Amino acid sequence: MADDIFYMERAIALAKQAEGMTFPNPMVGCVLVKAGKVIAEGWHKHCGADHAEVMALKKADAKAKGATMYVTLEPCAHWGRTPPCVEAVIASGVKKVVVAMTDPNPLTNGRSLKAMRAKKIEVIVGVCKDEARQMNGAFIKHVTTKMPFAVAKIAQTIDGKIAAMNGDSKWVTSVEARKFAREKRNDVDAILVGVNTVLLDDPCLDAPGKEIRKVIVDSTLKTSPRAKLFKGTKPGQVLIATTRKAPLSRVRRLEAAGADVIVCSAKEGQVDLSELFKALAKNGMVRILIEGGAGVISSALKAGLVDRMHVYIAPKIMGDDKAKSAVSGFDRKKIADALSGRFLSAGRVGSDIFMELEV
Amino acid sequence: MADDIFYMERAIALAKQAEGMTFPNPMVGCVLVKAGKVIAEGWHKHCGADHAEVMALKKADAKAKGATMYVTLEPCAHWGRTPPCVEAVIASGVKKVVVAMTDPNPLTNGRSLKAMRAKKIEVIVGVCKDEARQMNGAFIKHVTTKMPFAVAKIAQTIDGKIAAMNGDSKWVTSVEARKFAREKRNDVDAILVGVNTVLLDDPCLDAPGKEIRKVIVDSTLKTSPRAKLFKGTKPGQVLIATTRKAPLSRVRRLEAAGADVIVCSAKEGQVDLSELFKALAKNGMVRILIEGGAGVISSALKAGLVDRMHVYIAPKIMGDDKAKSAVSGFDRKKIADALSGRFLSAGRVGSDIFMELEV
Repeated sequence: MADDIFYMERAIALAKQAEGMTFPNPMVGCVLVKAGKVIAEGWHKHCGADHAEVMALKKADAKAKGATMYVTLEPCAHWGRTPPCVEAVIASGVKKVVVAMTDPNPLTNGRSLKAMRAKKIEVIVGVCKDEARQMNGAFIKHVTTKMPFAVAKIAQTIDGKIAAMNGDSKWVTSVEARKFAREKRNDVDAILVGVNTVLLDDPCLDAPGKEIRKVIVDSTLKTSPRAKLFKGTKPGQVLIATTRKAPLSRVRRLEAAGADVIVCSAKEGQVDLSELFKALAKNGMVRILIEGGAGVISSALKAGLVDRMHVYIAPKIMGDDKAKSAVSGFDRKKIADALSGRFLSAGRVGSDIFMELEV
Repeated sequence: MADDIFYMERAIALAKQAEGMTFPNPMVGCVLVKAGKVIAEGWHKHCGADHAEVMALKKADAKAKGATMYVTLEPCAHWGRTPPCVEAVIASGVKKVVVAMTDPNPLTNGRSLKAMRAKKIEVIVGVCKDEARQMNGAFIKHVTTKMPFAVAKIAQTIDGKIAAMNGDSKWVTSVEARKFAREKRNDVDAILVGVNTVLLDDPCLDAPGKEIRKVIVDSTLKTSPRAKLFKGTKPGQVLIATTRKAPLSRVRRLEAAGADVIVCSAKEGQVDLSELFKALAKNGMVRILIEGGAGVISSALKAGLVDRMHVYIAPKIMGDDKAKSAVSGFDRKKIADALSGRFLSAGRVGSDIFMELEV
């Protein structure tokens, strides 16, 4: 069992080499072990490339016979851009397969495990499952729900304030934390903000390493066609989600500025975020970073649309009940009723603390 | 220089072996190095025991001649329970002394450095200074200001709430975090709380490893003589700080229950905390843990009486602006005006994050 964990951790490390490169596929790593020695390794490098198991089996060739395979995800049972891996695994003659987690894709979902067992291969499932699930959170969410994996980002003081009473918010966190947060944009397909953030801060919403899509939630289309976020964008890069309340003249004006305007149902007068998120996923935006403001983050949390939170905490205290909180309007009456999650990590970034939370 | 840091870190590690045992003395560690080898080590084990330098010099004996001494604090120049160390250091024949920080005690404060240099000993000051200062925060504060070193403890949700709107606060943090927080009581001389905490939670305020003093801030003496905190206490263990507004009958009743009642000046109707803290230090309470509630913590922060904060953050969000914050009444208008500190550490405790902050 200690060996199983050792090799599976190696497989996870291999998988993570392709972080951000495999989508819509998951990251997968594979290690082949025989007589206590690693005989081959593989990982899925990018969408369309060999799957991890196939890469490792090709390297091992005839030596795979009688080996144990460690793979971070159940081999696929279905045809995608490449043939089903489970056939290659069975054909290779490995005697044992250790899998971190079942493939949640409904086309596989345990079928390969069954097929391998039917061929007398010993199959163990669940080694390092938590790590494997965490690594492919976005893949799992999307393949099982067709909804995007959403991360809400909050930069706050210790007492949970994102701005002073009058709206001043420059800057809560350190230069280093802001740079780190900007780099996190490279991991997603789209940044989403509420119109008030656009009106107050006029942000560029650029990612340092890619052309990122920008989604503005704006129920009455108050976004200015001269907002900085339009600068240098390509058609389809800026999406503005609105409701039927928005005047057609503004729709036309924003479309002329290069935006795609999506008209969603209204929910309590605001854009129905569930409907919008579904539409974003359909349009290839399956990893969303919600950067604020408080209204959008609170609504997304309330609607159960947030998977993770990235909370940056500055060593500051506002000490003012009227200062702006990142989340409001929940009105939970008891501590036991608070929205509850699980910390995945916490550490220093510049002078601040960065915490990752699963919700 | 790399060597200097290496040996000084060893000296700091030696010093920390006596954590919590040396007060009112500081923790001090000492390493003697000759020809690239450690020839003796020492640390101050408890008040009244040999100082670190003397322990190391006794071990090294004649071999100390020509050696380099690494010591986390400037050797003392004054008589205390033991003779001045600087004389022993000079007599030993060491050729170089590396000191992490000057002794802030006004009786030494650079005098030993001068005396050693006058005897042609090479003296270097400031190696690992931050670590050395951090280790002896309470000693430095008390010896330089005669005020207690105060730690404010907060257990909160991510959004800075310590209780729901109606006061419900059981429990914000995990069992493990509450146990860890209880153990922190062993590091201080007294726990201080406001009377509302006593009335609401009726806590025992016990420390797991010692008989700790309990200080209640109670401007009108609303504390009940039947409060749990009195259980099993000795004379002098419970102090209740009040103002002249308190009716004499209640003073008598609480004294009968075993409390010492201290009458302080009033400041905006409340106990003047600066005056109280000065009195506590005079009475041997030089390390204070402020455990709440929000009123006392906010007042202590406002009065500049807090040195460190221990913040426990649960992976929860109340999302309610009316829920209770740990700190209020600051009313800072801009982010730049927020109370600002420095994180010393952050890490997991149970399902929560524990952050230590210097303010």
